[in-house]
Amino acid sequence: MKKLKGNLVYGQSGGPTSVINASAYGVIMKSLEHQDTIDEVLMMKHGIQGALNEDFIFIKDQTEEDIDLLKHSPGSAFGSVRYKMDDYKEDDTDYVRLLFIFQKYNIRYFLYNGGNDSMDTCDRISEYMKHVGYEVRIIGVPKTIDNDLPYTDHTPGYGSAAKFIINTVMEVSYDMLAYPKGKVTIIEIMGRHAGWLTAASAVATKNGFGPDLIYLPEVPFSIEKFKKDVQRIYDKKQQCLVAVSEGLSNEEGIFLSSSSALKDAFGHFQLGGVSSKLAQIVNNEMRISSRNIELGTTQRSAAHLQSLTDVNEAISVGRRAVELALQGESGIMITIERVSTSPYKTTYGKQPLNMIANKEKTMAKTMINSQGNFVTEEFIEYIMPLIQGENTPKYYDGVQHFSRMKNGIGSKKKK
Amino acid sequence: MKKLKGNLVYGQSGGPTSVINASAYGVIMKSLEHQDTIDEVLMMKHGIQGALNEDFIFIKDQTEEDIDLLKHSPGSAFGSVRYKMDDYKEDDTDYVRLLFIFQKYNIRYFLYNGGNDSMDTCDRISEYMKHVGYEVRIIGVPKTIDNDLPYTDHTPGYGSAAKFIINTVMEVSYDMLAYPKGKVTIIEIMGRHAGWLTAASAVATKNGFGPDLIYLPEVPFSIEKFKKDVQRIYDKKQQCLVAVSEGLSNEEGIFLSSSSALKDAFGHFQLGGVSSKLAQIVNNEMRISSRNIELGTTQRSAAHLQSLTDVNEAISVGRRAVELALQGESGIMITIERVSTSPYKTTYGKQPLNMIANKEKTMAKTMINSQGNFVTEEFIEYIMPLIQGENTPKYYDGVQHFSRMKNGIGSKKKK
Repeated sequence: MKKLKGNLVYGQSGGPTSVINASAYGVIMKSLEHQDTIDEVLMMKHGIQGALNEDFIFIKDQTEEDIDLLKHSPGSAFGSVRYKMDDYKEDDTDYVRLLFIFQKYNIRYFLYNGGNDSMDTCDRISEYMKHVGYEVRIIGVPKTIDNDLPYTDHTPGYGSAAKFIINTVMEVSYDMLAYPKGKVTIIEIMGRHAGWLTAASAVATKNGFGPDLIYLPEVPFSIEKFKKDVQRIYDKKQQCLVAVSEGLSNEEGIFLSSSSALKDAFGHFQLGGVSSKLAQIVNNEMRISSRNIELGTTQRSAAHLQSLTDVNEAISVGRRAVELALQGESGIMITIERVSTSPYKTTYGKQPLNMIANKEKTMAKTMINSQGNFVTEEFIEYIMPLIQGENTPKYYDGVQHFSRMKNGIGSKKKK
Repeated sequence: MKKLKGNLVYGQSGGPTSVINASAYGVIMKSLEHQDTIDEVLMMKHGIQGALNEDFIFIKDQTEEDIDLLKHSPGSAFGSVRYKMDDYKEDDTDYVRLLFIFQKYNIRYFLYNGGNDSMDTCDRISEYMKHVGYEVRIIGVPKTIDNDLPYTDHTPGYGSAAKFIINTVMEVSYDMLAYPKGKVTIIEIMGRHAGWLTAASAVATKNGFGPDLIYLPEVPFSIEKFKKDVQRIYDKKQQCLVAVSEGLSNEEGIFLSSSSALKDAFGHFQLGGVSSKLAQIVNNEMRISSRNIELGTTQRSAAHLQSLTDVNEAISVGRRAVELALQGESGIMITIERVSTSPYKTTYGKQPLNMIANKEKTMAKTMINSQGNFVTEEFIEYIMPLIQGENTPKYYDGVQHFSRMKNGIGSKKKK
C-alpha cells in the first residue's frame, strides 16, 4: 500500500465525556510515532467548525505537560460542536470550503471523535471527498457516555460515567440510611433513549447500597406501576431509593420531562425534570416525603473518578484509528469487540460509518427484569469489567489540573 | 484528679458529613488506648434516640476492617437523628429515662458528634446530670459541612465538602467551555444561613475554571443586581458560571427558595430551588439559554474525594474529646484553633457547650467583596489549608466499601 504523506487533523464533536481527551492523547501519541508519514497533527477548535473557520490548535506548539494532562481532563480540551452538515448534493458550500482547507493544509487524515451524529458528519465528508477525488482517510473515533453506538460492545466514556454514578449512588444511599424513617429519594441519571447509564446504578445495589428500583427508557413508564412499586418498598423499609433515566416516556412515547406529560392529582402540570416530577407525585399523591437528585453534567465530567479500563480503551481507540488510517482504511469507525468477559479481553474492530450514523443501540431485553423495574445478572456481568481500575489524578494544592493548550480550552494565551 | 471508671457512649446527630465517621474512629481508637479506665465503647444507634431506646452498637463486637473503614465511609455509620430535647424543668421524661440507661450501662463518658442543635442537646443533658448529681463527663465533638459553628476556626466536614465542590465545579466549568457560545450555568451549593461552602467555589476560579459570580446568604440578594452582573459577564464571554447558595434571601430576609419569594415576568411563581428559579429568570426575562445544577446531598457524602487534612482533623477532635474527658473536663465542645496559616498549624481548644448551642457563625464581611458577588483573597487564604491532601479510598472491583458494623448502618446481620 502506498504511503500517504500529509497532515492529520482531529476533532471532537457532541457532548463531552470524561475520557474523550484520552482518545485525543492516543491519536497524538500514535501520530508522533509516524512522523515519516504524518508531518503534523492539527486539532480543530470546536470540531468541524474549527476546520471551516481555519481555527486550529497545533500540537507542535504544546508542552509535554499539557499533552499528558489530556488523560485527566474532562470536557473537550479542543472544544466541541453540534453542527449538522447538509447533504452536499443540496448545498455544497461547507464541503467546498472544507476541500479548500484540506488542500491548503495538506490534510490527508481526518479523525473525528463523537457519537452517532458525528459519525454522520464523517460519513458525509467521506462521501464528498470520494466524489471530488481528494484523497483523505476518514476515521470515526467513538465516544459517548450514553453507550448507545451500534456494532461496538461498548463506547469509551461509558465506563467512567458509570463508575462515577455507581460510587456516587452508593454514597447517597449510605447517607440516606442515616435516619431511621427516611424518604423516597429519586436519582435522575442521563440517557434520553438508552438506559445503560441508569442501569449501572444496579452495581451499587449489588454492593449493598443502591437503588431498590430502576426505571429505564426501554420500558414504557406507568405512573400507577411506579406508585405501587414504591409503596411496596417503602412499607417494608421505611425508605426507598429509585434510579430513573431522564428519558422515561409513557406508553404513547411521550417523554415524562415534556411539560404536557404529567398532571398531578390536582390537575396541575408538573414542572422540572423527570425526578422532580416523580418526587412531586410521591409527595402530593402518595403523601410520602420525597427528594430528588439530578446528577446533571457531573456525570460526564467527573475526571477525578475515571475508570482506568475506560481511559486505556479510550487511548487505544485513538491509537487504533491512526493505525488503520495509515494502513489505508477510510470511511469506518473503530469498534471495541469483547472476546471474553472473564478474563476480560477485547480486540478493536471497524464498521462502515454509514452503519453507525444516526443509529442507537438500546439495552437488550434480557438485561432488564420481567417487571421492568430493575436489571438482570446479564447486565451486571456485562458492565463489571468496564468500571475496573482508577485513573486517580494528581492534585496540586488540593485541586486537579486540566490541559490548557495554546488556543485550546482554558488556554492562558490566545494563539 | 480521680480516675472515673466506666463505659463511654458516643452518638452522631444532625446532617451527616463525609468525615463524621472519622471522628468516631478517633473516639474509638483513643478509648481503646485507655481500657484501664474506659471499660467499653458503645455507639448509640441514631444518636440520642438510641440511648432512649436502649439500642446500641458495641465496638467489641466489630471487626477491625469495619472500624478501619470508618475513615472512608460517608453518612452516619451509627445512624443520625434530629431530636430536640425538652427543657427538663418542663418535662423530664427523656432525662429520667437517660439517667436510668446511664446507670444501667454505667455510662460515665458521653460524647456527641454534631452541629449547633446537637451541642444544645449535650448542654441540656449536662445540666440535668449535674442537677441530679450523676457523674458523667459530657463532651461535644464538632461536625458540619456548613462550617457555621462559633469559637472554632473551622469544623470537621467542611474541608472535604469544599474540596469535592471545588473539584466538581472545575470539571463542570471546563466541560461548559466545550461550546463556543455557551449558556448561563447556575450551580446551587448547600448552606442555609452561611456561605462558607458556596464561597469555596472561588478556589476553582483561582485555578482557571470556576464561577464568574458567587452569591452568598450573608448578602441580601437583589434580582436586578444579579441580572446586571450576569448580562455583563455574558456579553463579554458568551457564557457565565454562577455559584449560588441555597440560602439566598432578599432584602426582607425571605428565602428565594420559598414559593412566595419570586414571580417571573409573567406573574407566575417560580417553582423549585434557588438555582432553578434563577435559571428560569435568565431564560424568561433575559432570554439567554440557561441551566441549573444542584449538587444536593452528594456534597456531604462524597467519601471518594475527602480532604486528608479534614479527615486527620476529624480523627483528632474525636481523640481529643476522649483525652479531655479522661482529664475530667465536661460540658465543653472541642474546637480547632489556627496557630498559623503558612505553614498551617493548629491546636485543639475547648468552649463551654452553652456558648456554642444554637449559634451560627457566618462569613466575615472582609471575606466578601464590596460588590457582594465574589469573595476576597482573605477567604482564599483561609480555606486553602483545609482542602490539602487526599484520602483516596481503596476500590474493590471498581467500587468503594463502607463500614457495615453489626447493628450499624447497612449491617448485614441484625444484632
